[in-house]
Amino acid sequence: MAGRGEFDLIADLFAPLAAGYSGALNLRDDAALVDLPAGHRLVITTDALVAGVHFLPDDPPDLVARKAVRVNLSDVAAMGARPVGLLVAACFPRDGGTAWVELFAAGLAADVAEFGVPVIGGDTVATPGPATITVTALGQVATGAELRRDAAREGDVLMVSGTIGDGALGLAVQRGRCAGLEPALRDALIDRYRLPQPRVTLGAALSGVARACLDVSDGLLGDLGHICRASGLGAEVEADAVPLSAAARAAVAADESLLRSAVLCGGDDYELLFTVPPDRVAEAEAAARQAGVTVTAIGAMVAGEGVAVRYAGGPPEAAGDGASWRHF
Amino acid sequence: MAGRGEFDLIADLFAPLAAGYSGALNLRDDAALVDLPAGHRLVITTDALVAGVHFLPDDPPDLVARKAVRVNLSDVAAMGARPVGLLVAACFPRDGGTAWVELFAAGLAADVAEFGVPVIGGDTVATPGPATITVTALGQVATGAELRRDAAREGDVLMVSGTIGDGALGLAVQRGRCAGLEPALRDALIDRYRLPQPRVTLGAALSGVARACLDVSDGLLGDLGHICRASGLGAEVEADAVPLSAAARAAVAADESLLRSAVLCGGDDYELLFTVPPDRVAEAEAAARQAGVTVTAIGAMVAGEGVAVRYAGGPPEAAGDGASWRHF
Repeated sequence: MAGRGEFDLIADLFAPLAAGYSGALNLRDDAALVDLPAGHRLVITTDALVAGVHFLPDDPPDLVARKAVRVNLSDVAAMGARPVGLLVAACFPRDGGTAWVELFAAGLAADVAEFGVPVIGGDTVATPGPATITVTALGQVATGAELRRDAAREGDVLMVSGTIGDGALGLAVQRGRCAGLEPALRDALIDRYRLPQPRVTLGAALSGVARACLDVSDGLLGDLGHICRASGLGAEVEADAVPLSAAARAAVAADESLLRSAVLCGGDDYELLFTVPPDRVAEAEAAARQAGVTVTAIGAMVAGEGVAVRYAGGPPEAAGDGASWRHF
Repeated sequence: MAGRGEFDLIADLFAPLAAGYSGALNLRDDAALVDLPAGHRLVITTDALVAGVHFLPDDPPDLVARKAVRVNLSDVAAMGARPVGLLVAACFPRDGGTAWVELFAAGLAADVAEFGVPVIGGDTVATPGPATITVTALGQVATGAELRRDAAREGDVLMVSGTIGDGALGLAVQRGRCAGLEPALRDALIDRYRLPQPRVTLGAALSGVARACLDVSDGLLGDLGHICRASGLGAEVEADAVPLSAAARAAVAADESLLRSAVLCGGDDYELLFTVPPDRVAEAEAAARQAGVTVTAIGAMVAGEGVAVRYAGGPPEAAGDGASWRHF
């Protein structure tokens, strides 16, 4: 990195992202200090993003940074927690030059500002391999009000935030599919894939209202299967009820097979999928309005096991295996 | 990975490492939950280790896992905190096979047992690049009793745990230097480089006794410079007082230049370097005895700035720049 030391790099680019959070100790100590309000517990999650696996090597570095931040904030939101800090372990390609690092830091700065969550620690190293970004996100939630995957009950209404399928369709578009779509719709889908919108405000607002919750990262049906297994229940989904964006509607209209492959089983939506007792659906909808996010009932938790889908009012069909992305 | 899914891999190899920690939610939720006792704050740190940079690509995977855990536990100890959990984001080489992953998990398991610290979360991904292991370690410390780099005061006694220089000398031996040393001494040095001994018990015991503290990872003089800058002070070190292992003594006897290059400026010792008010040195020594670790006074914090070293009773010499390793 042309004579710039690790310490200079951290001081110049990353320390400002810790400004205002005294426990970050200016990113100059061995570790950061985090205080929790009484009656709260810490929520913590980590995700690694690798160039060529989770993003394209020529994706803009600022978007890479923001995606790495957002997939983690999404996990915090899925626990019903409010995010409080980020740690960023960034392995920058040895021959990538400082411009990549500076753009990456600019992307971090943008999301630190947008979500009001400081970078309180991290590590920067040079790697002979692809850029590899591991973000750890911390949140806080009132003890007992966290949203766990194993907390669904029979009869709970199944709801999702926002629209489903845009992430996977965006990836499909980037790979040359959906060529008949209008450019504006194609761009909208690509944006959704490249820059997830974690439901940070909604997640915290659902704490104490929803029961089970997760974020849809591996695919709606596959992720719903996690809630089913963890809660010892089955689930029924009305395919027609799953909310689609205008772009996704157009894509599915042109190629009906995309409903299952990309919408129901695709990943990278980062919407919240949650279960709510029937008598609290109105409360969840009010919380969503307050957060500026739509939520939609798409089915229910039922006795039994596994996920079943009804297409166009037909009989329930088992979603079966292979309903989610796998990294290995 | 020959048909094994990420979820199976986590369930088989990593979930047992979370056993007994209910907040880990069996590694099956979006995030882990951590409770802190009243009057305590969380300490959190993250470090990334890359094959070919921080370890050799053919190093045994179990040792890689343990090194990644230990460098992070060392940072927790340096804050005076007791470790409470680990998150492990592991990027395994795509073509590395499951044997590497299984050995890696075995190394994790060994240190989970040795330090009594569960793995409470993480991520496993396949990378087209070198193995890249990012561990995040959490600790807890009584609020106000944390050991910060900026807390040294003029007149504090400067102390180190264990012996200094073994890590850098171990690396030198691995690179073919110190060829005249007895094989047993060479092996002892290599072991110290490959498998740091984080001073976990000592660190927590020094909380409330020591003032400033850090772990020696970049080199004794360079790291001491961090304490000086953070605390607005200078430091004087007696080179003859710096504790050496039998192996390091033999290496320095054979090549006196190693005292400066490897012992005083080398890295990877993971010993604690801390400052203590003169009237509490006996207390620090008692804490060290209890922890089964030696501690040695090597100098003092003084007014002014920068690190000065006295060799063999001579005049103090400024340590100068370039006194620590740099990754970039």
